[in-house]
Amino acid sequence: MSKNTDELFKNVIAHAKEYGFVFQSSEIYDGLSAVYDYGQFGAELKNNIKTYWWKAMVQMNQNIVGIDSAIFMHPKIWEASGHVGGFSDPMIDNKDSKKRYRADQLLEDKIARYDQDGKTDKAELLQKDLDDAIKADDLERLRELIVEHEIADPVSGTRNWTEVRQFNLMFSTQMGAIADDADKVYLRPETAQGIFVNYLNVQKSGRMKIPFGIAQIGKAFRNEVIARQFIIRMREFEQMEMQFFVRPGTQKEWFEHWKAARLKWHLALGTDAAKYRYHEHTKLAHYADAAYDIEFEFPFGFKEVEGIHSRTDFDLSQHQKFSGKKMQYFDPELGEDGKPYGNYIPYVIETSIGLDRMFLLTMINAYEEEDLSTEEKQDSRTVLRLHPCLAPVKAAIFPLTKKDGLPEKAREIMESLQLDFNLQYEEKDAIGKRYRRQDAIGTPFCITVDHQTLEDNTVTLRHRDSMQQERVPADQLDKIIGDFVSWKNILK
Amino acid sequence: MSKNTDELFKNVIAHAKEYGFVFQSSEIYDGLSAVYDYGQFGAELKNNIKTYWWKAMVQMNQNIVGIDSAIFMHPKIWEASGHVGGFSDPMIDNKDSKKRYRADQLLEDKIARYDQDGKTDKAELLQKDLDDAIKADDLERLRELIVEHEIADPVSGTRNWTEVRQFNLMFSTQMGAIADDADKVYLRPETAQGIFVNYLNVQKSGRMKIPFGIAQIGKAFRNEVIARQFIIRMREFEQMEMQFFVRPGTQKEWFEHWKAARLKWHLALGTDAAKYRYHEHTKLAHYADAAYDIEFEFPFGFKEVEGIHSRTDFDLSQHQKFSGKKMQYFDPELGEDGKPYGNYIPYVIETSIGLDRMFLLTMINAYEEEDLSTEEKQDSRTVLRLHPCLAPVKAAIFPLTKKDGLPEKAREIMESLQLDFNLQYEEKDAIGKRYRRQDAIGTPFCITVDHQTLEDNTVTLRHRDSMQQERVPADQLDKIIGDFVSWKNILK
Repeated sequence: MSKNTDELFKNVIAHAKEYGFVFQSSEIYDGLSAVYDYGQFGAELKNNIKTYWWKAMVQMNQNIVGIDSAIFMHPKIWEASGHVGGFSDPMIDNKDSKKRYRADQLLEDKIARYDQDGKTDKAELLQKDLDDAIKADDLERLRELIVEHEIADPVSGTRNWTEVRQFNLMFSTQMGAIADDADKVYLRPETAQGIFVNYLNVQKSGRMKIPFGIAQIGKAFRNEVIARQFIIRMREFEQMEMQFFVRPGTQKEWFEHWKAARLKWHLALGTDAAKYRYHEHTKLAHYADAAYDIEFEFPFGFKEVEGIHSRTDFDLSQHQKFSGKKMQYFDPELGEDGKPYGNYIPYVIETSIGLDRMFLLTMINAYEEEDLSTEEKQDSRTVLRLHPCLAPVKAAIFPLTKKDGLPEKAREIMESLQLDFNLQYEEKDAIGKRYRRQDAIGTPFCITVDHQTLEDNTVTLRHRDSMQQERVPADQLDKIIGDFVSWKNILK
Repeated sequence: MSKNTDELFKNVIAHAKEYGFVFQSSEIYDGLSAVYDYGQFGAELKNNIKTYWWKAMVQMNQNIVGIDSAIFMHPKIWEASGHVGGFSDPMIDNKDSKKRYRADQLLEDKIARYDQDGKTDKAELLQKDLDDAIKADDLERLRELIVEHEIADPVSGTRNWTEVRQFNLMFSTQMGAIADDADKVYLRPETAQGIFVNYLNVQKSGRMKIPFGIAQIGKAFRNEVIARQFIIRMREFEQMEMQFFVRPGTQKEWFEHWKAARLKWHLALGTDAAKYRYHEHTKLAHYADAAYDIEFEFPFGFKEVEGIHSRTDFDLSQHQKFSGKKMQYFDPELGEDGKPYGNYIPYVIETSIGLDRMFLLTMINAYEEEDLSTEEKQDSRTVLRLHPCLAPVKAAIFPLTKKDGLPEKAREIMESLQLDFNLQYEEKDAIGKRYRRQDAIGTPFCITVDHQTLEDNTVTLRHRDSMQQERVPADQLDKIIGDFVSWKNILK
């Protein structure tokens, strides 16, 4: 991360706090590590991102419906999904610093250092050894590699290491009153399983026919050891996931469909296409037969924002096995042989986007420190060039002064608009200062009510991006703003 | 609960499952006690209730903003709020059945039985003893009363009781990687504290002036011992809470304001006012100086849906004490003495509504088994008379038959409407059957495309409640539906 991009990222974080987008959780108690709260403008922006996703996925697709399943689920579900057995990181402790590290991460860091130092041979060899050890799930070997390559704890500087142990990333709690008999339940580490275990309930009650999808937005929890980079990796986060159920053998074409459709969703917001790229998974998870990430260029490099995974019939088959309930779908349509396809376990294409990352992406992409200096004077502004559909506040209304009936007139106009739009009313400070505050939270329009308004019912409409001002009739504001912030502009 | 109302409640629960509103969580694994999932129509209905609340509270009030704080919070917050020390129920176990009961509940049941048997004196005496014991937090005395009044376990029939112990209702989990040093954190039992600890962040970044409010919708968790009555009491549930910060001394008038405003919100949905009533708390919680519930008449009697509480400065003062951070607001306005009010800890009026209860209320209130019999034939339908703003699907589109280009025409009309409304498309079964299915999920409009549509572009528009049909131009559907389902109808 260069100094410039590092600074940009820091500035965005500071801006997010100063203007009520994101606060450190429990800040007055010195915070809770890797947990964040969304402030008044952050909550609106996050809600707007959710709405955009839900409309694009559920409302615009007649064969996709949305559900809202609970965070608590039967613990056997996480055995079936593989999370109890496999959702863990290999950890090693330094006995002097008492710090805990991911063993594979220590080795990856070492490889990067070999590369930096031009020791390409060593880097390649260690990479191969590391891959082999991970493939074989050989924790002892991981420790050997750490010792062999003389890796020291960056804190204590010593090489006094414990064994490598697996550390499960799921949070657990006890449910029920009877302590001796209490049930251990987990906080879901992903929302997907809530869709899988309900897929037949939805299919039957909704008379869904394959191919069809089930979408969900909701919280998930992971006890990340190294939580970092602001809201990029949190212990409590939100996912927007859609599982698309298809006939076996058709998963390739649907995978391609969703891979393209999801990138299109991102680009419809007007983001520079060069900031996005696909990343193909070469090492596939045990349940997948194809997987691509959609990556965005954050200040600290390209990072996954969304994953599109062809999950095969793995999850549904596992639930059939672990629950003892049939998870088959009956497909009445006729195949090439003239017979119905009949009973089968569908294949699944998943699209999974991290809402918090999407939020951060949106903030970073919108943030600009604009130089407005002229020959006469230095000037600048910080503006969030948010897509109007996503902007927390659609318009701000200012009486030019606090007297002569201007506040009353401004409030009257506000009341005529507030059924349709989220608005702000401000009467303090000079108009220029009020403009700057709205720029900082990304409000597309500012409406100023002045003495002329009392005469001819026109107002000054000021545009965020161009800073241009125009005189418009107050009774046309509804249409002007409505057209500009309409979901139709991005859903088509 | 009479047989009729009992049956109504059972029918609503069955209907909710059959039509994709509410499923038992983890059903294929035989369920998870007191946890439910919202299906495809339930999720839409729930989202619409949230939207109604958010618009009414945040969008329509310029001095109320919404936030979205995390479920995980610093554990000290729950010490400050009193939940670690006090948020517990007195429990007693029967040694034979191994069942656990709330001690006070056993005694309340006994009082009710005395009353039923006409033993009013005994009832009154026990009530007094129970009140005294609870006031004195005297667990031993609770046990004595259970023994004295010869209360037997309804399961085992024996009086072989353990001691009475306090059982905390908060779920806890361990955060962080280092097991020996792990932090115990709680799943929040209410969303309110997320507002209190952020109130100065919001006030400063949003330049809010007293009086102002902060609203929030989010999950909360309580390890209820006796979870029951479908989604009335769940271990994982959702709250819609607003905390309104006022100048000390003005809390009475604001309490009255919100008490009235919140009932108005409920009644704007067209619900029979006779089904609602206020219930005044005579025993106030330690933090309150006034408290009213808004109750709704469920099939099993009047039950709290929403609480309006005057919480004084209790919570903010506690956080000032426990965090060591100043929680004062500086009020620049001038009092009667001509001096600014200056620094003080605001008083707080809370409005707190259970989203799941509101959902159930809405389902029960909308549900009707309507007799449509004529002299010639018996007929009936099940219809959800949901307010159009809350209906999961706004309109369903049917081609009369599957041929002659009708499906294509119907899809064309659907595509012209789906940017604005959540729709369903159905081409299977007779039109009458399709009407019934839409009635069952509360869809206000059905649109049928027939051969005449191909000629003059008119469609049959069928109304859910009256079952009347009319012929309307397809290009007017947007406006007809739009006007009918507009939030303006209930937000004004």
